[in-house]
Amino acid sequence: MSGDPRPRGGFTAGAARPDTATVKPFGRVAVIGVGLIGGSVAAAMRARGLGGEFVGYSVGTDARDALARGLIDVAAGSVQAAVEGADLVVLAAPIPAICGSFPAFASRLSGSALVTDTASTKRSVIDAARATMGDAFPRFVPAHPIAGSERHGPGAARASLYEGCATILCPQPETDAIARERIGALWAAFGARVVEMDAATHDAIFAEVSHWPHAAVFAMCAAIARGPRAADAQRFAGPGLRDSTRIGAASPPLWADILLDNRAAVLDCAEAFERELATLLDALRAGDREALVAYLEVASRWRQGIR
Amino acid sequence: MSGDPRPRGGFTAGAARPDTATVKPFGRVAVIGVGLIGGSVAAAMRARGLGGEFVGYSVGTDARDALARGLIDVAAGSVQAAVEGADLVVLAAPIPAICGSFPAFASRLSGSALVTDTASTKRSVIDAARATMGDAFPRFVPAHPIAGSERHGPGAARASLYEGCATILCPQPETDAIARERIGALWAAFGARVVEMDAATHDAIFAEVSHWPHAAVFAMCAAIARGPRAADAQRFAGPGLRDSTRIGAASPPLWADILLDNRAAVLDCAEAFERELATLLDALRAGDREALVAYLEVASRWRQGIR
Repeated sequence: MSGDPRPRGGFTAGAARPDTATVKPFGRVAVIGVGLIGGSVAAAMRARGLGGEFVGYSVGTDARDALARGLIDVAAGSVQAAVEGADLVVLAAPIPAICGSFPAFASRLSGSALVTDTASTKRSVIDAARATMGDAFPRFVPAHPIAGSERHGPGAARASLYEGCATILCPQPETDAIARERIGALWAAFGARVVEMDAATHDAIFAEVSHWPHAAVFAMCAAIARGPRAADAQRFAGPGLRDSTRIGAASPPLWADILLDNRAAVLDCAEAFERELATLLDALRAGDREALVAYLEVASRWRQGIR
Repeated sequence: MSGDPRPRGGFTAGAARPDTATVKPFGRVAVIGVGLIGGSVAAAMRARGLGGEFVGYSVGTDARDALARGLIDVAAGSVQAAVEGADLVVLAAPIPAICGSFPAFASRLSGSALVTDTASTKRSVIDAARATMGDAFPRFVPAHPIAGSERHGPGAARASLYEGCATILCPQPETDAIARERIGALWAAFGARVVEMDAATHDAIFAEVSHWPHAAVFAMCAAIARGPRAADAQRFAGPGLRDSTRIGAASPPLWADILLDNRAAVLDCAEAFERELATLLDALRAGDREALVAYLEVASRWRQGIR
């Protein structure tokens, strides 16, 4: 491993998931952003008896929708109202909204409340939290569950979303040991493999495995969409194109925020890709079959290594 | 439609598939190349009673394997022996092998034998056939079934492979009307939507929906494989990366041949992509969220248009 992610003691990849009974349940749970990700956290907690009451807040209609679907018990009118008296706050809004929410609620947190998040990038969220959470910062355990879908909204939420997925935790030097343990156990109780790593390593790895691939696929789709064969390509798309462009249907504002937030790492990946693509195209232009086969072997072997 | 593919009379997209009983069965069927594609043609014909005896030939062990699996009845020792007395010849080998096989068997064809192929590119195969098949050329009906998988070999072959897929036919001015009708009916009997278009249009469309996306995904995989986080990326690949790189596990020699064969069209697509990627990266570098969201909207809308 180049990035040296330190596996967590009790519940790393491959280890048995801890008995739900050993996870201490929370009373009032505030979920900020109750779409696919936040709604699934609420559903996963409720299914396992890990929360007493679920209060949701969202900009837009997600909270009302989540209430109607029984994912939450109360739709709050503001972030402040949602976190009032909460024992656990789950931040599952888009990244800029998460970063902007800390000042709004940090002073309202009860003295024992824990906080976790679900953002796809970690450095900016941690920086914002450290700058604005004050005394409550040690009780924030930054998390990134590696789950998702090109579908979104509370209608797509489900209790099983995190089963078998990795969840990355990025605890900080200030992070309270009990908070870290309890939030780790919570994610593990959802069926996730919990792995700890530092935030910079996280952001570099997820630029490579998620953020940059989204950018590349968006560009692939845009090139077809703006070209002369956009309709033909939709009509004749086979399983290869369908799979390889599936993430191109993802939410534009959500992904614009992720790409902007992890911009430097994404641009590094783009540069590496452009170099590799030039090598492939040179072999193709030169009609050099031997070089081309050798190149494709490197790619194919790597892909076959994903289990 | 930019390319004006002319739909076939009786069995275009959306039309009911013709009754198998109306497809005149063939006696002896020669399948040259009995991997996933050729093996599935044999299986689909046998399942529908459309062939009496199946003779296979392959370089390597595919024919022996196909024989052991009951896909074919005879494994021939040469292309010439395979086509001897055949009523139908199905060319399902890699493109250079198909192009190279015409001189070997054209003079051995019985006077009524029909020929079809499965190559992913059509111009080069048609050019090779026209140059070397002589009097038999009108009985060659070029075809491209839009099916496949990153799996290959006779072990992956199945009778249902072509159900619901498109099959493109590229009949030529010289093509015999009865041959064209009968080969079209055969593919339609497998459950494929049969569409006719000219070979240049075919090659441009399939560069865009298949060949170039393979090249792009191979480059994406190669960039990760040769970078500092190759193992981390395998470990933390989520469903997005898995789907978007799935075709990167495809066969290197097979795809080297396809890319080389359709090189000009693939390079056109690569150029369009590089322009689009530059636009995206400019917006990202500039931190221009509005431009970025608008760009991703174009991509996402196009992708959502694939049904």
